[in-house]
Amino acid sequence: MSEIAELGEFGLIEHLTKDIHPAQATTARGIGDDCAILSPAEGKQTLVTTDLLLEGIHFDLTYTPLKHLGYKAVMVNLSDIYAMNGTPRQITVSLGLSRRFSLEAVETLYDGMRLACKDHQVDIVGGDTTSSLTGLTISITAIGDVEQDRVVTRDGARDTDIICVSGNLGAAYMGLQLLEREKAVFNQQRREAMQQPCPDGQVRQALADSQPDFSGREYLLERQLKPEARRDIIQALAEAGIRPTAMIDISDGLSSELLHICKQSHTGCRIYEDRIPLDYQTAAMAEEMEMNVTTCALNGGEDYELLFTVPLSEHDKVEAMEDVHVIGYITNESLGCQLITRDGQEFGIKAQGWTHLEKNS
Amino acid sequence: MSEIAELGEFGLIEHLTKDIHPAQATTARGIGDDCAILSPAEGKQTLVTTDLLLEGIHFDLTYTPLKHLGYKAVMVNLSDIYAMNGTPRQITVSLGLSRRFSLEAVETLYDGMRLACKDHQVDIVGGDTTSSLTGLTISITAIGDVEQDRVVTRDGARDTDIICVSGNLGAAYMGLQLLEREKAVFNQQRREAMQQPCPDGQVRQALADSQPDFSGREYLLERQLKPEARRDIIQALAEAGIRPTAMIDISDGLSSELLHICKQSHTGCRIYEDRIPLDYQTAAMAEEMEMNVTTCALNGGEDYELLFTVPLSEHDKVEAMEDVHVIGYITNESLGCQLITRDGQEFGIKAQGWTHLEKNS
Repeated sequence: MSEIAELGEFGLIEHLTKDIHPAQATTARGIGDDCAILSPAEGKQTLVTTDLLLEGIHFDLTYTPLKHLGYKAVMVNLSDIYAMNGTPRQITVSLGLSRRFSLEAVETLYDGMRLACKDHQVDIVGGDTTSSLTGLTISITAIGDVEQDRVVTRDGARDTDIICVSGNLGAAYMGLQLLEREKAVFNQQRREAMQQPCPDGQVRQALADSQPDFSGREYLLERQLKPEARRDIIQALAEAGIRPTAMIDISDGLSSELLHICKQSHTGCRIYEDRIPLDYQTAAMAEEMEMNVTTCALNGGEDYELLFTVPLSEHDKVEAMEDVHVIGYITNESLGCQLITRDGQEFGIKAQGWTHLEKNS
Repeated sequence: MSEIAELGEFGLIEHLTKDIHPAQATTARGIGDDCAILSPAEGKQTLVTTDLLLEGIHFDLTYTPLKHLGYKAVMVNLSDIYAMNGTPRQITVSLGLSRRFSLEAVETLYDGMRLACKDHQVDIVGGDTTSSLTGLTISITAIGDVEQDRVVTRDGARDTDIICVSGNLGAAYMGLQLLEREKAVFNQQRREAMQQPCPDGQVRQALADSQPDFSGREYLLERQLKPEARRDIIQALAEAGIRPTAMIDISDGLSSELLHICKQSHTGCRIYEDRIPLDYQTAAMAEEMEMNVTTCALNGGEDYELLFTVPLSEHDKVEAMEDVHVIGYITNESLGCQLITRDGQEFGIKAQGWTHLEKNS
């Protein structure tokens, strides 16, 4: 922190952003004044979303590399812009840093943010950097745009629309379970090692030797630590000439997001358990941990896939799309939100549907 | 927190924002989707600014009422928009809440935010609410607009421009000193009371009786706890047909902000100690605390007044403006940034110019 204290707030921001050059035509002026100045493109609407990430609540630095954290912090905001069928253009980044963060650590965090921005051609146009008495605080606001007649909200789903989801679900959650399990194993080993009568150096060596074994599970870790916002799906939908009737990104789990769409659209829905896309590793890990994989997919969260509805007439088009899966359809509100299990039973979808599913598993 | 836990994140946001109805024509859709949707006015530029406020760093809840805190948190962001000669339109609010916050406490905080928004006709269009392991975290992003040819940045000051400041300086800092002093007195009284052999109830009563005496100092407290962003000055400048060449709001102290303008405009400046506007209470309090009042005005910060430069030709116009004070003029960069003291001495202005001034006091 001494290096950071020396730089001071303005020095730190200058240092972190010195090689950031705006890529977006709509960025008239970035960092360095009271405000960033943006020049909105004519005929477009502006999209704004914000996320606050707190250490100990949203991330655990014992197993989250800072570069990945920076990348993910940006990505979850970009995902919200794509979920409106928009294009992200700018972000602002506010950081609260406790004394234990070195300049190098903050640079690493920023590297991850910059990488995410570069991949999606987004400018960092402002922010705030402050000291924190406690953990790391990250607050990001993303700004994007969308043509006026292309914006997709949560409330446009209609009876008979088909429900689609991109990618696969539950993998990020299983990745988190895996990391938490290895953290518990490591802590247990450390406790045991500390109880042995041997020099401290040997304890450290023993711990260094006990690397967690993640082989064969890399995909789950990547889904948890380095999620990708699905710009490719937004682009593929545009190329196919499809404008979804409703859309949301899956941050809190399929169940929760489905209920948002149905509540705001005043509809019901029916989805089919056997249609929910799963990766092989997700299923294998759930098996190993004796968890119900459907429950994980429904409630796990942090997938950052897109959930959207399209008119029935677009069925063939979406079926032909790569990495898009039809999982059910929208119904009249009076029919409620239902999951049809593999054996044909019907269950009401709850935002935290563990109880029903656990009973059935 | 139990009430908050029962409501859940979405319930809490719904509860806090249920009676918020967009007032701005540019707010197409506020809270309730992945993003807010804004419709930028034609020919205008968008301004974006963000601030992160952390408990223990930026505010002390032992003497900051939550309603005032909410008000101030919004106001400091609006001040940044006015400092670009813009009009604030929307804000997003992210809150990190530790378990000790009741629903009532959060409502009170929000009441203060809503009051600030109402006064300035600003919409709350989005945000994020999360639990926090530690203190209260407030992250606000403000969005505004300005006609393309009216935006005022920090880098437009030119040799011979005159330097103006609104209101008076140092009062917020003296208010903070006063609150900190009374806090120390209270803590001392509590320690002493706890050492007396008497029932706990009597200790509490004795403490309740020892109310701090702020009479005659209300203005200083108000400046610290409930600052007002100077929309009136922006409007008066527009009415007078004056477009400042450079402008910044005074959040970190006059010295720091002057240096920002001079550095970014590649100029120097000369300001006169006897021209720095001070309130009588600020001077009296500084006297009482044996502090140099000029040092407080130069480095105190949190005044949220506007510092701006105008061409020499506008001198008579700004002299005629209410609550605007000419404090000096812009010079060639080679002459540096100088303060001319009451006795005619010249001192280089530093971002934290305590040393020089203390020596001279």
